[in-house]
Amino acid sequence: MTIGPLRARLADGREILYFDDDDHPGRSHDASDQRPLDAVTTDSQLRWDPLAREWTVLAAHRQGRTYHPPADLCPLCPTHGDRHTEVPEPAYDVVVFENRFPSLAGVADRRRDAPSPNDPATELCAPGTGRCEVIVPTDDHEATLPQLSVARIRTLVDVWAHRSDELRRRDDVAVVGLFENRGDAVGVTLHHTHQQLYGYPFVPARTSRLLAAARDHRGRTGRCLVCDRLDMERSDGTRIVSAGDHWTFLVPYAARWPYEVHAVPHRHVRGLPDLDDAERDELASLWRDLFARYDGLFDVDRLPTIAAWHQTPSFEPDGHVYGQAFTLQRDVGKLKFLAGSESSFGAWILDVTPEQAAEALRD
Amino acid sequence: MTIGPLRARLADGREILYFDDDDHPGRSHDASDQRPLDAVTTDSQLRWDPLAREWTVLAAHRQGRTYHPPADLCPLCPTHGDRHTEVPEPAYDVVVFENRFPSLAGVADRRRDAPSPNDPATELCAPGTGRCEVIVPTDDHEATLPQLSVARIRTLVDVWAHRSDELRRRDDVAVVGLFENRGDAVGVTLHHTHQQLYGYPFVPARTSRLLAAARDHRGRTGRCLVCDRLDMERSDGTRIVSAGDHWTFLVPYAARWPYEVHAVPHRHVRGLPDLDDAERDELASLWRDLFARYDGLFDVDRLPTIAAWHQTPSFEPDGHVYGQAFTLQRDVGKLKFLAGSESSFGAWILDVTPEQAAEALRD
Repeated sequence: MTIGPLRARLADGREILYFDDDDHPGRSHDASDQRPLDAVTTDSQLRWDPLAREWTVLAAHRQGRTYHPPADLCPLCPTHGDRHTEVPEPAYDVVVFENRFPSLAGVADRRRDAPSPNDPATELCAPGTGRCEVIVPTDDHEATLPQLSVARIRTLVDVWAHRSDELRRRDDVAVVGLFENRGDAVGVTLHHTHQQLYGYPFVPARTSRLLAAARDHRGRTGRCLVCDRLDMERSDGTRIVSAGDHWTFLVPYAARWPYEVHAVPHRHVRGLPDLDDAERDELASLWRDLFARYDGLFDVDRLPTIAAWHQTPSFEPDGHVYGQAFTLQRDVGKLKFLAGSESSFGAWILDVTPEQAAEALRD
Repeated sequence: MTIGPLRARLADGREILYFDDDDHPGRSHDASDQRPLDAVTTDSQLRWDPLAREWTVLAAHRQGRTYHPPADLCPLCPTHGDRHTEVPEPAYDVVVFENRFPSLAGVADRRRDAPSPNDPATELCAPGTGRCEVIVPTDDHEATLPQLSVARIRTLVDVWAHRSDELRRRDDVAVVGLFENRGDAVGVTLHHTHQQLYGYPFVPARTSRLLAAARDHRGRTGRCLVCDRLDMERSDGTRIVSAGDHWTFLVPYAARWPYEVHAVPHRHVRGLPDLDDAERDELASLWRDLFARYDGLFDVDRLPTIAAWHQTPSFEPDGHVYGQAFTLQRDVGKLKFLAGSESSFGAWILDVTPEQAAEALRD
């Protein structure tokens, strides 16, 4: 049973939250941050691209962020003696804190919609408000998801739900995006397993397209698009990787990425906070199992993967949450890169069929 | 003055076209391909993703494609003695041939639009027809764009125009996409400088958004969106990298990529084939100059870059072509990777301001 959060502040005023799997009698969570940190300053800006009609985030101050530190200087490890890190405690289960190099920070009075097209001179830029949190699910520098206990991942699911719920209640947050990047090939700058939560002040470009398709389908059919796709995939069966009473993990019919998997709850719920206990229990088990399957695909230590949760925008009454995971490894010794076709035109070329991917992940 | 094309066939039936800068008295272009090649077989499929409403290309047969061959086995070099390559001639200026491992090949009777949303069971997949060509602008294995003469790049511009024009006349090609990937970090599998031309049988996802924004702007204002942005940037000036009588090269206000540059012709023309001689002359000079500027940015041999040309879809009467180039190098020793925010949500985070990028490229 998840205990927490216990809330504290780092030396520069950033919030830190501790969540425990269970009562740890020796842990007080009252260590204070001894570092002489300057306050975090950001000068992020949102800029509107009228050619593609999307916001981009300009975060030039992040160029100086920590980049591949040696293991003994890992800022996500617990603090021991004089070795001060981002986490003042000597041990933790799951810890969450505001990113020291946030792409988005601060509060606005409302979320950012598209600028008025009839007045292109106004609102082409806006402050880069929002929130960037780091979620660290283990104080073990080397452990990756499949090495954590199901109990710990169950705590983690509660943390995802807690943080998503708190952020989606903000008027200036449009979408709560949760993701985990793993592996050098994904550009991970900190080796210690961690996830990131972004409270976007605008609807990101891809989320906006997913939303438009879902609204249109609902309008035409009265049904949920994600529910309909799930029904189709469950009756077909060839692209299912794993399943339980509450979840189906499947390779989408038109996957864009190698070994892409969607984790879909059977019940029509908007976001992670809306999952009940039985759904969270099963998710913890299946999510851990999925990453063990990824690690078994090729003979690679820490297969480069990206995982994300697509939650319903906070202003949208209807939606169906799902997880997404994929690897950038398309074969033994071969990575998938985004080149001109993907980057410039948005035309994805996939080398592995979804049916082959599902079969490889099932076995 | 560009001579050509002279058309021939490779041993497996693929088309090969030679273009020369000028008359080369010794060259007959009549060498025949001596390799015992099996016919190219493809089983590409287009699959429709109803969640994001876009086509993806499934090209599983490409897994076996040539991957980082040693220099003495480069298939893009000329043929010498018993060393047979894709180009039977012992020398060439610019050569174009159909890709031996095409993502898209074959002919259909029409382009692919979005499947009818009221009948989701039909047309969720289609044959992966279209055309993938390789353009090799030099027979020198090591030369990159800035090392080619302006005269050669002038020939290359004619080649781009010729190939784009031939492909855009096909009923089953919706968009002609032209791009060049350079550098290991972009996933380039062949080191020898080359470009690729894709005759897409559908409108790729990003192109579709650019088209929608352009149509909407035209409908509301009666003006071209690209013309309007160009006017704004020329009067502002802070993001201009280089310019001439016919072209302006600028960093877009809401750039998504490090050191992104748009190469915009002043005249409102739909595609590369519609450029006149003066525009082609100036483009050759400015395009070469841009890549010399990229190479001067950091102390890096072959800075990883992607370049692409956004041409108007073939069925669209109105549009304004522009080139796009960017690097994945965001700083000395630091690459830009697409991680969860970009890949899953489509929210791009940029570390380099467009104004800084323009200044660095100008100097």
